[in-house]
Amino acid sequence: MRLSQGYWQTLKETPNDAEVVSQQLMIRAGLIYKTGAGLYTLQPMAFKTYKKIENIVREELDKINCFEVLMPVITPAELWQESGRWDAMGGQMLKMKDRAERELCVSPTNEETVTDLFRRTVNSYKQLPVCLYHINTKFRDEIRPRFGLMRAREFIMKDGYSFHNDKDSLDKFYEEIYGAYENIFRRMGLEFIAVEADGGNMAAGGAKTHEFQVVADNGEDYVVTIPRTKFAANIEKAITVRKNIASAPAAELTKFATPNQKTCEEVCAAHGMPITQSLKSLVMHSVINGKDQFFMVMLLGDDSLNEVKFKNKVNAEHIRPAQQAELDRLGLVKGFMGPGTTAEGFKVIYDEAIDMNASYVVGANEPEHHMKGFVPARDTKPKHFRADMRLAKEGDYIGDDQIVLKKGIEVGHIFQLGDKYTKAMKVTVLNEQGKGVTPLMGCYGIGMTRVMAAAIEQNNDKDGIIWPASIAPYDVYLCFIGKTPETKALAEELNSSIKKAGLETLFDDRQLGPGQMFKDADLIGLPLRVTLGERDYLATGEIEVKIRKTGETLKVKKDDLVPTIKKKLEELGRWA
Amino acid sequence: MRLSQGYWQTLKETPNDAEVVSQQLMIRAGLIYKTGAGLYTLQPMAFKTYKKIENIVREELDKINCFEVLMPVITPAELWQESGRWDAMGGQMLKMKDRAERELCVSPTNEETVTDLFRRTVNSYKQLPVCLYHINTKFRDEIRPRFGLMRAREFIMKDGYSFHNDKDSLDKFYEEIYGAYENIFRRMGLEFIAVEADGGNMAAGGAKTHEFQVVADNGEDYVVTIPRTKFAANIEKAITVRKNIASAPAAELTKFATPNQKTCEEVCAAHGMPITQSLKSLVMHSVINGKDQFFMVMLLGDDSLNEVKFKNKVNAEHIRPAQQAELDRLGLVKGFMGPGTTAEGFKVIYDEAIDMNASYVVGANEPEHHMKGFVPARDTKPKHFRADMRLAKEGDYIGDDQIVLKKGIEVGHIFQLGDKYTKAMKVTVLNEQGKGVTPLMGCYGIGMTRVMAAAIEQNNDKDGIIWPASIAPYDVYLCFIGKTPETKALAEELNSSIKKAGLETLFDDRQLGPGQMFKDADLIGLPLRVTLGERDYLATGEIEVKIRKTGETLKVKKDDLVPTIKKKLEELGRWA
Repeated sequence: MRLSQGYWQTLKETPNDAEVVSQQLMIRAGLIYKTGAGLYTLQPMAFKTYKKIENIVREELDKINCFEVLMPVITPAELWQESGRWDAMGGQMLKMKDRAERELCVSPTNEETVTDLFRRTVNSYKQLPVCLYHINTKFRDEIRPRFGLMRAREFIMKDGYSFHNDKDSLDKFYEEIYGAYENIFRRMGLEFIAVEADGGNMAAGGAKTHEFQVVADNGEDYVVTIPRTKFAANIEKAITVRKNIASAPAAELTKFATPNQKTCEEVCAAHGMPITQSLKSLVMHSVINGKDQFFMVMLLGDDSLNEVKFKNKVNAEHIRPAQQAELDRLGLVKGFMGPGTTAEGFKVIYDEAIDMNASYVVGANEPEHHMKGFVPARDTKPKHFRADMRLAKEGDYIGDDQIVLKKGIEVGHIFQLGDKYTKAMKVTVLNEQGKGVTPLMGCYGIGMTRVMAAAIEQNNDKDGIIWPASIAPYDVYLCFIGKTPETKALAEELNSSIKKAGLETLFDDRQLGPGQMFKDADLIGLPLRVTLGERDYLATGEIEVKIRKTGETLKVKKDDLVPTIKKKLEELGRWA
Repeated sequence: MRLSQGYWQTLKETPNDAEVVSQQLMIRAGLIYKTGAGLYTLQPMAFKTYKKIENIVREELDKINCFEVLMPVITPAELWQESGRWDAMGGQMLKMKDRAERELCVSPTNEETVTDLFRRTVNSYKQLPVCLYHINTKFRDEIRPRFGLMRAREFIMKDGYSFHNDKDSLDKFYEEIYGAYENIFRRMGLEFIAVEADGGNMAAGGAKTHEFQVVADNGEDYVVTIPRTKFAANIEKAITVRKNIASAPAAELTKFATPNQKTCEEVCAAHGMPITQSLKSLVMHSVINGKDQFFMVMLLGDDSLNEVKFKNKVNAEHIRPAQQAELDRLGLVKGFMGPGTTAEGFKVIYDEAIDMNASYVVGANEPEHHMKGFVPARDTKPKHFRADMRLAKEGDYIGDDQIVLKKGIEVGHIFQLGDKYTKAMKVTVLNEQGKGVTPLMGCYGIGMTRVMAAAIEQNNDKDGIIWPASIAPYDVYLCFIGKTPETKALAEELNSSIKKAGLETLFDDRQLGPGQMFKDADLIGLPLRVTLGERDYLATGEIEVKIRKTGETLKVKKDDLVPTIKKKLEELGRWA
């Protein structure tokens, strides 16, 4: 693009409502425009990057024989009603009625649509396995859309769905798509971790699922890693242990006054006790097989509840903290609760980090009072059992290895769905014996617009974006300093020769001062900046090539320019 | 694609609900699947064609320096309210509320979105002209979605919007985009006509607008053409005249009985009169400046009303035929109406093909009676005037040239919008004097999924589709007859060598009989079919190349195969 005839506007100021760095930089660099709440327009350079991302994804999926289709954005309610998700998807699904009063929605995902397509077009085991994917607009009505493209309401997702005769075939394909995803994110030049994740409600227990997380400070997800073994798991999935906690020996149970001391931190600080010798009591409401049930979860004073583990352990459909009225009904005093009460109506779960025969401080179930010398095995009144309930944290161990927590942005998710949808939607294919059997499914997503934001989150500095070379909107920012016809003509010549080599330039022919050009160049963050300085060139016959990522500059003669650019781009992963 | 591991299903029977040939063939050839009413999934081969169409459009628009963006599919009501179209778009706009009760719609077009984008990012005349386009999903809630992709509710449109400092710039760009559109449809291998069209409500009078129509028997639009001069206009826009109508001299006005003879055809047939000596009276209700008004439009007995001309002439917001109750109120007797009544409340418009001083048969405004010898200039009672009101038809003239009517499918539309949106949405840019001025706009659409259907409507025979070579899903249907390992190995070798030449094959390795393979090959209609026949090859060393379009077959030696394929594809416009 030639900037004198181009369409590009940068902002000097960081917009007020931009909360994370990718959002700030994308707005400042003129890459996105907010058309509405959670609704973004991709400006031309963002669109160019988007197309490069699309091409990488398409190439890798085509390599493993996936077929690209295009399903509608608007889908009929009937399909969602068949799977039972019309109601289950909740408020994030944008629903509407057409002029004939038929219910429709803007599809947030496409399991139903693809399963319907499959059952109408495939009928024999011989046609399996097959994986269909599309790259299309999705809408999820986030309560609080934020962070620009990272959590927009409308976004583009690649979603793929595979169908299999048996679990072996599903497992085999899962490995293939896992490999394709590794290639995809590697080719995009991203530092990422494939993490074991929790399946949630999506599939039968034991089904494999992995998230692909781009490592970034602003990530919303925590990933538990072991650098030595390359282990990585979603924090909600990871099972870790605490070591070296000095526990207090069993002692006499004594009540003591703790005025206004409601948290473990407050009690322990006021009475000079180590926090690991106190227990926090969390009362959770859960719905199990449609029935309400309450649990008091006991954790060491400085641990937090892993809600996913709790939900899975008790096999609940829904969970939430108990409300005040519920606590009242259970005879529990907020801020001073403990498992030493004789109240009925709930069970107690002790986290496995707790020593059941040691002494702890717990709430006394009386306003402004706690108990000390509470020995769980001896003093717990309601029914109780032990389970792993805590959220992993820095310093924990898995085996002999200490974990390292990283923050990540989820850009991909692969998932063994099993027969959840094929069963609900009564899909069968004929097996070798001519009998109808239910095929198994997997699903595989990539947040196509989100990955663009994640790439920037991971690759930037105070001056702007540092695009990975394979997905940069252009290869070279070409600018010149000087106003003579000779210099302009030479700049045009350089532009032509770079383009002739099959590379794309952002040619700054606006005749601005070097300060402004260099600022814009740093902000948009193309891999290389080429500067033709009139004075330098006349003196030395040299042109400057600057590498955005390292800041390194090279001086090259005109004839060496294109080979140098190609070599540097190659090193930067342009053709990864 | 290798069919043994592929995903492709053809149907033997034409589906019952498929009304037009493109829809029938696309379903039979496994190109589309109906996910819901007016909602289609593109299957892999349709998607491949779609991508080729996209590439052609993108290349031609990039050549004239248009910039590709991506605006949201879901757009906020506020933008449409600003332009006044939130209500005006009527039932075709699919509206909804999000969880925060904000009104949204699935965008049927994007004038508002792009105008909002423009006003926030462009502020100086120096940045103009600029043309932004995107290729994205649209939704129009057709009352009766039909004809598959030709009139689907969800479809993909390329919509571009240009902004200009003045009319000269708009006119100049209009010529450029006109040229780009000609290139686009020519490269797609389509027979098309660029026709002058009517601007309707979209822009100020006198603004240029052209439709690009693909000529096809099932087209819904009529185009008036003059083969000699290459003139073409939308039938609603064309001004043509009738010649050589023998009119009857003025005569005495006489009432005569016409029992059950309600139409001009019936009266003239019963009384042995030429139909051009009768006049039909159409009463139209119109809303002009918000007020109801009635007109009686008089046409020669065998002419029809051009509603667009009528609407433009009387400058109405809405028009429709008058209803029974309204005719009663006006004292008009349906089937026997005429302008000889003294009733008030309507004006009479005589079409210009009528000789105001000749004699005609008209309704007598009495049940079962007409008048003869009615001389319009002499006998019309209400206020009246003359205007061109008739729809052009075969045999008409423009100057000395007789017109030819063609049927077309509208695949593109270019349009000078003027300041309609920039004014309504208060957009200004600073001119050379630093004063805020309202820029002018143009808009430019292509029905991306519709053009695929139109291509098939125009290019098919009884056996199936005949894809234009530049947009065919694959270049070559490669099949082999014979089961020996040598033949299979040779077929694999041919497949590799065709692919190595940069061409795409649909490799039928399903080991079916030639009948089934040839049927499928004809149905999917790739430009070339290559058949390796074991017996033929052993006898003569020759392989067959069949050209789908002409039916011509060639026998070539193995080494000549790839060069022959390339040459034939070149001739067929593969790289147009």
